[in-house]
Amino acid sequence: MRTIRTKMSRRTFLSRAASVTAATALMPASSFAAQPVQTGAYAADARLSANRWRDEGIIDLSNSPHAKVKTVPIRAVVITDGFWSKRRTTNVESSIPSMHDELLAHGRMDNFLRLEDKSSKPQQGPVYSDSDIYKWTEAVGFVLQSSDQPALRETVAKMISEIVAAQEPSGYLNTYYVGDRAAERMLPLTQERGHELYNIGHLLQGSIAYYRATGDPTLLDAGIRFVDNFLLPNYGPGVNQKPIVAGHPEIEMSLIELYRTTGNRKYLDLAGYILQGDSRIPLKPSQIVYMFCGIPFTSRTKLEGHAVRAMYACCGATDYYLETGDPAYLHTLNTLWTDLITDQMYITGGVGARSEGESFGNPYELPNARAYGESCAAIGNMMWNWRMLAATGDARHTDVIERALYNGINSGMSLNGKLYCYRNPLAYDSSTGDKIRNPWYDTTCCPPNLERTLASLPGYMYGTSEEGVYVHLYDNSEMNWHLASGTPLRLTQKTEYPWDGEVAITVTPQASEIFTVFVRIPGWSKHSRVKVNGSSVEGVVAGHYLALRRRWKPNDMIQLIFDMEPQVIHANPAVADDTGRIALQRGPIVYCMEQMDQPAGHDPAQFPLYAARLSPATEMHYDAQLLDGVVVLSHPGVLMPAAQPDSLYQPELDRTTAGCAPTSLKMIPYYAWNNREPTSMQVWIPAAAAAEV
Amino acid sequence: MRTIRTKMSRRTFLSRAASVTAATALMPASSFAAQPVQTGAYAADARLSANRWRDEGIIDLSNSPHAKVKTVPIRAVVITDGFWSKRRTTNVESSIPSMHDELLAHGRMDNFLRLEDKSSKPQQGPVYSDSDIYKWTEAVGFVLQSSDQPALRETVAKMISEIVAAQEPSGYLNTYYVGDRAAERMLPLTQERGHELYNIGHLLQGSIAYYRATGDPTLLDAGIRFVDNFLLPNYGPGVNQKPIVAGHPEIEMSLIELYRTTGNRKYLDLAGYILQGDSRIPLKPSQIVYMFCGIPFTSRTKLEGHAVRAMYACCGATDYYLETGDPAYLHTLNTLWTDLITDQMYITGGVGARSEGESFGNPYELPNARAYGESCAAIGNMMWNWRMLAATGDARHTDVIERALYNGINSGMSLNGKLYCYRNPLAYDSSTGDKIRNPWYDTTCCPPNLERTLASLPGYMYGTSEEGVYVHLYDNSEMNWHLASGTPLRLTQKTEYPWDGEVAITVTPQASEIFTVFVRIPGWSKHSRVKVNGSSVEGVVAGHYLALRRRWKPNDMIQLIFDMEPQVIHANPAVADDTGRIALQRGPIVYCMEQMDQPAGHDPAQFPLYAARLSPATEMHYDAQLLDGVVVLSHPGVLMPAAQPDSLYQPELDRTTAGCAPTSLKMIPYYAWNNREPTSMQVWIPAAAAAEV
Repeated sequence: MRTIRTKMSRRTFLSRAASVTAATALMPASSFAAQPVQTGAYAADARLSANRWRDEGIIDLSNSPHAKVKTVPIRAVVITDGFWSKRRTTNVESSIPSMHDELLAHGRMDNFLRLEDKSSKPQQGPVYSDSDIYKWTEAVGFVLQSSDQPALRETVAKMISEIVAAQEPSGYLNTYYVGDRAAERMLPLTQERGHELYNIGHLLQGSIAYYRATGDPTLLDAGIRFVDNFLLPNYGPGVNQKPIVAGHPEIEMSLIELYRTTGNRKYLDLAGYILQGDSRIPLKPSQIVYMFCGIPFTSRTKLEGHAVRAMYACCGATDYYLETGDPAYLHTLNTLWTDLITDQMYITGGVGARSEGESFGNPYELPNARAYGESCAAIGNMMWNWRMLAATGDARHTDVIERALYNGINSGMSLNGKLYCYRNPLAYDSSTGDKIRNPWYDTTCCPPNLERTLASLPGYMYGTSEEGVYVHLYDNSEMNWHLASGTPLRLTQKTEYPWDGEVAITVTPQASEIFTVFVRIPGWSKHSRVKVNGSSVEGVVAGHYLALRRRWKPNDMIQLIFDMEPQVIHANPAVADDTGRIALQRGPIVYCMEQMDQPAGHDPAQFPLYAARLSPATEMHYDAQLLDGVVVLSHPGVLMPAAQPDSLYQPELDRTTAGCAPTSLKMIPYYAWNNREPTSMQVWIPAAAAAEV
Repeated sequence: MRTIRTKMSRRTFLSRAASVTAATALMPASSFAAQPVQTGAYAADARLSANRWRDEGIIDLSNSPHAKVKTVPIRAVVITDGFWSKRRTTNVESSIPSMHDELLAHGRMDNFLRLEDKSSKPQQGPVYSDSDIYKWTEAVGFVLQSSDQPALRETVAKMISEIVAAQEPSGYLNTYYVGDRAAERMLPLTQERGHELYNIGHLLQGSIAYYRATGDPTLLDAGIRFVDNFLLPNYGPGVNQKPIVAGHPEIEMSLIELYRTTGNRKYLDLAGYILQGDSRIPLKPSQIVYMFCGIPFTSRTKLEGHAVRAMYACCGATDYYLETGDPAYLHTLNTLWTDLITDQMYITGGVGARSEGESFGNPYELPNARAYGESCAAIGNMMWNWRMLAATGDARHTDVIERALYNGINSGMSLNGKLYCYRNPLAYDSSTGDKIRNPWYDTTCCPPNLERTLASLPGYMYGTSEEGVYVHLYDNSEMNWHLASGTPLRLTQKTEYPWDGEVAITVTPQASEIFTVFVRIPGWSKHSRVKVNGSSVEGVVAGHYLALRRRWKPNDMIQLIFDMEPQVIHANPAVADDTGRIALQRGPIVYCMEQMDQPAGHDPAQFPLYAARLSPATEMHYDAQLLDGVVVLSHPGVLMPAAQPDSLYQPELDRTTAGCAPTSLKMIPYYAWNNREPTSMQVWIPAAAAAEV
């Protein structure tokens, strides 16, 4: 009963919150209050009857026994004018509509319609093409949780009806394995390529996001039919069941989200079975590496194989831990996380060094120009660390989320929202002619993945626990939610983060109450100050949550002042590709150097600009006209003379400093690279010896 | 008539030369004087009647109008005790016999025997497997030019009879395209893979080497039958001929060698047609890049595609220039050579950056651990520069020959002669478990290629021109040959090169005569001294031949003193993989650092040893017990503390020099790496800033 009372009071509070002027077009959740719940097979479920869907976050941890930090619904947070609002507006106004058109132009909906005799076109796109539609649907679901968009909702509702109409009476739904290909369905040894469970996983995630936006379970019901009618009776560990393997992990986390949504434990158990692997399937060792599934997850000791598969597997395993508390899972997850952080992650938060197999490389194998760093893998990294943060409350996971979000994910979408990176390299030689930003890929996993990430962003900013509330990420925003006690709570952030390090947080519980506000001190902020109502707080430690426990009363004020000095970053000496190089970071933003911003007349392919090794008095200024507004760094360096063409290798005594000249290197945020005319780019800049500066 | 007179007097001189005590088991050519010339279809050729085969070098440039430098026959040069004699003895006693056994064990001769119903085994090995036998035969041919080895000769003669017996009446000979595969013969669009002309090219080269050793034309006749009876009537530019493409270049240089051997111009013309490409074949652009053939050679502007194919194509094109003097060819060859030297060649003389397609990369793309650097490509580089040296007399080509020979080729065979590198990386992380040296590869192109290179080495050491004689390479040796005038000439080298920089050359013409001795001043020797009979000579310039023109009399003495100071080498700043790194070179030898030689207790995978940036007083000593005897360098450096596991990226202010300790880095010649227990290796060592030393 307490839960219901809590929700009622929250909704009342939300209605009040709606009167706050939001600086963006995104509307608070209360707009949906009057909308009717759709009917459907699942609509009769007890859990649904209370409109519980309104309170569910990106992932719903409200009943997860091992979640130290709970999620806050997207609709409870409004991101107001600031760094992310621009990107999010572009996402809704430009990316999502243009991707809809691309998906239709490339036959992704025709694939469904032909099964209903409404299209005569042949099957189009790769085996995982259905997932493009589902992931785009998920992005729209998250958008609709922030803001009612009737036209968009109508579009998706129509698409959903077309998707559902293609479902077979058995519950099976896949537009690729039809006709002659139906004979290949669910063969365990073809799942490396088959992606059938991957597709259904994205259907479930998309349907849940849409359901949490609208209460409409139409697509969710289709997903449940697939699992209940087709999958569970035929596949599993039983002697009369056939074995399955995830192939491309994704089904695990989606089944667990289905468990959270319905309360039906069979979905959690199925996810556990898949995470365990089924030894009846004679997988090759190379497949076990590549697919990152097929053996007990808890037997893994390092990240390897296909980076997105590994990240999604880790997401599913963390979800499994959040529900079961199995210590073997947490042990393995921490082992893999240490591997991530110590030898596999780019400074941008990207992962996956190799194009071959889109895979992790050896430890410390982090090439720059050849970096794969698929947008989906960086998103997977963020999604995994989001779950790890929930499991542990440890700010080191939030540091990774922030690093990936602001850099290796943010780079994946152009500023105009219509071009996407599949690869996110850390160096680029324009003379190669490689086109990094494109409107469409036939394997178009990344674009809708970027869209769903931006659309779900409000849900990542705050969290709650039995002790109080967490502030994970900083941007202008307002949270209207409640404490575990049920007390409605509003938090308001005012900041120019990430360009400025000051954040003002207004804490407004409905009534004064003792609880903790956990404010995150970023790992990069070496000298931070925190004040509450003007009084300095002690015990501020970088890379940790600062627990501010007191009796909070309405309009209490927290001030955070982070260290925004640009930092000269060195990589571990074992990273051969970064030897003799430095990178610049300021706040959460990793910088890069584009050739077009440097002195002219030097061969861009050679890029002979050296950065000073030691941290200098780097100058910075905010340029509102450049790249939608960025802080530009000007870093002293050396302009080297163009190398002689006959001197690929030179002895020291032949080297000359003649022609070396001091210069200033102009650096822009990495995420904004390649948004003008493409010129050569580097994140890791050669470091000149002091004598050469 | 003059030519014949010259040869007669040379042979007389050779007989005298035979009385000189050779320090190795390899015997001078005169041993063969009494051997009968074998009969065969080609034996009746007028050119052969004069036993001209005895005077032909690795390639026979005696009648090449555009060769500035002519070759000297292998049998005219004896390499005596010293650096290469050890390797060459191992080659004859260990490598060639063990590779023979491997070839038979892997069915490479069964492939021929089954066509004669003497073997019931199925076809074994890839499409180019016949070439393994031919290239091994070529190695033996070169060995037999230096030294009679009756058992070896008997073995090869038997193999040759088995090969020839498999030839079809049409002249076609290939053990792969038989039976059902016969329908695929010579399809131009399959030559990218087919290797039919590649196989025949190696048959021709092998048969010519064996013919030049023994006068036995049995295999040569088979090659001629293939070309005369099968190829020329059916394939070529004529309207009634089908078009062909080399696929894997090799046929070009072998056809031109056949032209040189027989004097029959049709072989040169056919090579010219193939070098031109046939526009009737609709090749894809990617095939034209990968195969490095199919379009006019003279339209090439850069090295690209499969590195061995490109190098072999350049060999054939240079051969074509040597015979025709076509200036367009020389222009293109110089353009490609500049590309090689300025942005594509490893410091070891290896080429081919990428495993993908075994190919060249972009300019300056020279990864170290991932370096492909196939042994065959380094050999192709040497073979090409050998031909460019003949065309130009320019010592810059000899510098490349020496660099490749002592380093990137020499590394390809283990010191015991039984293990071979396919790849020759410049860095190695033992934790990857990659096995670099192996006794056998199913694509076993490299092992016999290395064997033929060592076997032919005497032929690379000297040259002649109208003005006199060239000394290209330095090692203990004796040349018994003649000047263009016909005057017999003996040159004797005494040296401990490459470990010591002093070389004493005794010049003994049969009678005193004015001519030039061109001694090569290596490009790496910045301060060289040259004396003739004790008097210093002026005008010594690194990277050029020093022309010593005078009246030479028997037992005149040239003394060369090269600069053997170890050099700290920097790469062009555009080589991203070498940023902040240095390499050490001493004389022609490039050094590397193996983990096992360094202070213990540091993670080999991280290899946190830094080298001093500036050239220090590096210590050196010859260690006769180590790696068959090498000069070891001890280079001051810094032992960095092992990086903290949680610090993949660190700001400057967190970096500490605590735990840094001066140390001495022990360096060994690169060619000798991985001859003990495999541990991590680097050629390019991180360079510490001066402040850290």
